[in-house]
Amino acid sequence: MQTATQELQDLTAAAHTASGPAAAASDAVRASWLLAVADALDANVAELVEIADSETRLGTVRLTGEVARTTGQLRLFARVITEGSYLEAVIDHANPGATPPSPDLRRILRPVGPVAVFSASNFPFAFSVAGGDTASALAVGCPVIVKAHSGHLELSKRTAEIVTQALSDAGAPAGLFALVAGREAGAALVQDPLIKAVGFTGSIPGGRALFDLAVSRPEPIPFYGELGSLNPVVITPAALAARSSQLAAGLAASFTMGAGQFCTKPGLVFVPAGSSFGAEVAAECAGKGAAPMLTDRIAAAYPAGLAGLAAQPGVDLLSGSTGQDAEADGAAPVVFSTTAAGVIARPGELLEECFGPTTLLIEYASDAELAQALALVPGSLTATVQAEDGEDIAALVDQLTGLAGRVLFGGWPTGVSVNWAQQHGGPYPATTSLFTSVGATAVRRFQRPVAYQDAPEALLPEALREANPLGVPRRVDGVLQLG
Amino acid sequence: MQTATQELQDLTAAAHTASGPAAAASDAVRASWLLAVADALDANVAELVEIADSETRLGTVRLTGEVARTTGQLRLFARVITEGSYLEAVIDHANPGATPPSPDLRRILRPVGPVAVFSASNFPFAFSVAGGDTASALAVGCPVIVKAHSGHLELSKRTAEIVTQALSDAGAPAGLFALVAGREAGAALVQDPLIKAVGFTGSIPGGRALFDLAVSRPEPIPFYGELGSLNPVVITPAALAARSSQLAAGLAASFTMGAGQFCTKPGLVFVPAGSSFGAEVAAECAGKGAAPMLTDRIAAAYPAGLAGLAAQPGVDLLSGSTGQDAEADGAAPVVFSTTAAGVIARPGELLEECFGPTTLLIEYASDAELAQALALVPGSLTATVQAEDGEDIAALVDQLTGLAGRVLFGGWPTGVSVNWAQQHGGPYPATTSLFTSVGATAVRRFQRPVAYQDAPEALLPEALREANPLGVPRRVDGVLQLG
Repeated sequence: MQTATQELQDLTAAAHTASGPAAAASDAVRASWLLAVADALDANVAELVEIADSETRLGTVRLTGEVARTTGQLRLFARVITEGSYLEAVIDHANPGATPPSPDLRRILRPVGPVAVFSASNFPFAFSVAGGDTASALAVGCPVIVKAHSGHLELSKRTAEIVTQALSDAGAPAGLFALVAGREAGAALVQDPLIKAVGFTGSIPGGRALFDLAVSRPEPIPFYGELGSLNPVVITPAALAARSSQLAAGLAASFTMGAGQFCTKPGLVFVPAGSSFGAEVAAECAGKGAAPMLTDRIAAAYPAGLAGLAAQPGVDLLSGSTGQDAEADGAAPVVFSTTAAGVIARPGELLEECFGPTTLLIEYASDAELAQALALVPGSLTATVQAEDGEDIAALVDQLTGLAGRVLFGGWPTGVSVNWAQQHGGPYPATTSLFTSVGATAVRRFQRPVAYQDAPEALLPEALREANPLGVPRRVDGVLQLG
Repeated sequence: MQTATQELQDLTAAAHTASGPAAAASDAVRASWLLAVADALDANVAELVEIADSETRLGTVRLTGEVARTTGQLRLFARVITEGSYLEAVIDHANPGATPPSPDLRRILRPVGPVAVFSASNFPFAFSVAGGDTASALAVGCPVIVKAHSGHLELSKRTAEIVTQALSDAGAPAGLFALVAGREAGAALVQDPLIKAVGFTGSIPGGRALFDLAVSRPEPIPFYGELGSLNPVVITPAALAARSSQLAAGLAASFTMGAGQFCTKPGLVFVPAGSSFGAEVAAECAGKGAAPMLTDRIAAAYPAGLAGLAAQPGVDLLSGSTGQDAEADGAAPVVFSTTAAGVIARPGELLEECFGPTTLLIEYASDAELAQALALVPGSLTATVQAEDGEDIAALVDQLTGLAGRVLFGGWPTGVSVNWAQQHGGPYPATTSLFTSVGATAVRRFQRPVAYQDAPEALLPEALREANPLGVPRRVDGVLQLG
């Protein structure tokens, strides 16, 4: 399936036409659209999970949970827009006595217009057709055109049918949502003058190529890409002494979860030198079998990535096989180890993401060496510290904060809760922007500020009218006021 | 003056080193730095204005007012960070009963790191060394390296001395602020891996070239550029009938203000066809003499821009001379007129910004023709409607909202108040981002979100600690709470 040029242009034109009514719809109305989509997906969960499992091999338990996360996400965004803070309404009344006199000025966030969304392979629901990018864009009144991931094309089509029908039944404007497919259609979408922003989750090469297209347009547009992440974990000597077997079990469960195909998989684990932690992790992996990967292409890339790392000097294989046939047999866990000195000597070769159930233990000899190696780790979605109460880890936390969007204390990064405080993003290449793609503030990516100066009351957006008829939180003359 | 490569690298290294202490400083401490800079500039206003006038020829009255705006801006940002909402603190407490269980998650905005600031020619204080970009970056804890504008180099150096001394006296970390000069140093600054964001105000070609450098880096960085703006004004038939002479006087005052060298100069004025408004504007300009322009280069470009527009078919010269020698004699006002049909036929030629005291009246025959021509106007900082009470202008306002960051009802766009609600930005090429470069929310450009998961209280930023010791506004478990 490849969307033809003319069809794509018709779809972006329809999306452009839908922008007006979508922006003009009240928050309550747009919330009802999101809830209708959520209800429709829930009502079709069995059928959707069956298609998804046949295409992604992720299993019905995981996939059923992911549908719940996806519909929960749609419902969260309905609450976010109903609450109203997302409008960032600000009113400065006129001050004729100021030098110079200042006018009445009222600022609000408005939808940017049609948004292109690129689905991820590894979350066929939560980061796909009706996932977080789509939900957050629709929430603020932006039409959405989704580029389907080739790894779950049938699921994408069926999901899109359900979304389109639900939106139509809920009275949403025609053209508000569409699905396209094919690599060329994706590139054309990013370059279409009617598209005003892009949401993307995928690989560094693919994401950077689309990013480059977006910023090279005559009118460059924001490209919100989530590209790749090593998700470093640091284990302190005290934590290792106190609970090494628990840490080994937790790590093994986290990096093998979903066949190691999570964006937040812990791919680098810094451990004090001279311990038996590697053997403990290897032992935990012994009980974990192979699991099918998302696509044949991903399965073929896994052994290639393993072999590349194994060939590096100073890298030891602790557990598993680099010669596995992941396409035929699924991907089995592999644990490598090296030293911080090795990372410092060859960061480009050792600090590379390998999609699949593998992780690299990095033994560090001192805090200074740890800091030096960490300084070479590229921007990441998450960074995790495993420490004990009373340890002085302030400098370490400061460094981890500098390289990641989410800093975890204990626990493992592979769970991403969808709520108001979530931050799923980080310095490049984790993301290409200063925003999150998960959680309430994801909507801010698809809004732009507009200020109205000396506007007649009747021409103002309702949220900016003097009496605050919608009861939204606002800042008035510098003072924050609840609704 | 051209900053050498080694010196530039030393400065970015020093800025990088200052990032830690700047980020760690409390809001109250950073506010004290901003106030110290403001006080120092005010204390030296006479000397600064004298240097500025000798370099920019803007006159002491305007320049003295601009120093007040600049120090007022620094003091506004001190209030913004003291108030605390700018941190966007969000707390979601753990919910062990959720499916899956959700951890304690606390989100806050943190400084991005060293920022490069490119000064504008036309506001030697407010958009220059100690202007809005510098103030907003320092406010949130980002070191700043300013690329001086060659049009006011002596002023830049003297301002930088005062800023550096004031910051030092106030106890700010060394390396927090520096000045560089020269085109090559500017390009190198944007490409320096230690620079994490860029603020820019200037021309479309210059800004786009730097934007392209910023997004082509191995690690692309946000480029907050304000590039160019036509600032359309629409006069309705009723407004023209009610107050044409007042509109003519207001327009003439606005487009000639500061020799037409404001980013917000009204460059396009849509007027109903068949009126005598053009003659009225021409008559208002008769009394306005020539005024010196900022630099010889700008003065040389002005007649060239005028001649280019005059050569277009269907463009009439209503007032002034296109053959003037603005370098020798200063720039005198020039008024052109054309028709909406002409704009629709040749938008690329007629919708081009001409820096200087000139404006283009565009006669429209119907609302439909007006809408068709407006749809061709590039993104703008402002759009103004001059209408009368009771007119149905909702569709017009909607269209203007789509093309500008600030929509004015009556009045003229050349005044930009510095307060909480201001939005100075708009669709490309007005700006290259979804942010404002003036007003309280300008700080958001230099912050990135970080979430802390299950962090021990003592390791959290103060604003995220349970008892809210700083008293900042926060969202707790989805509910917005005042400080």
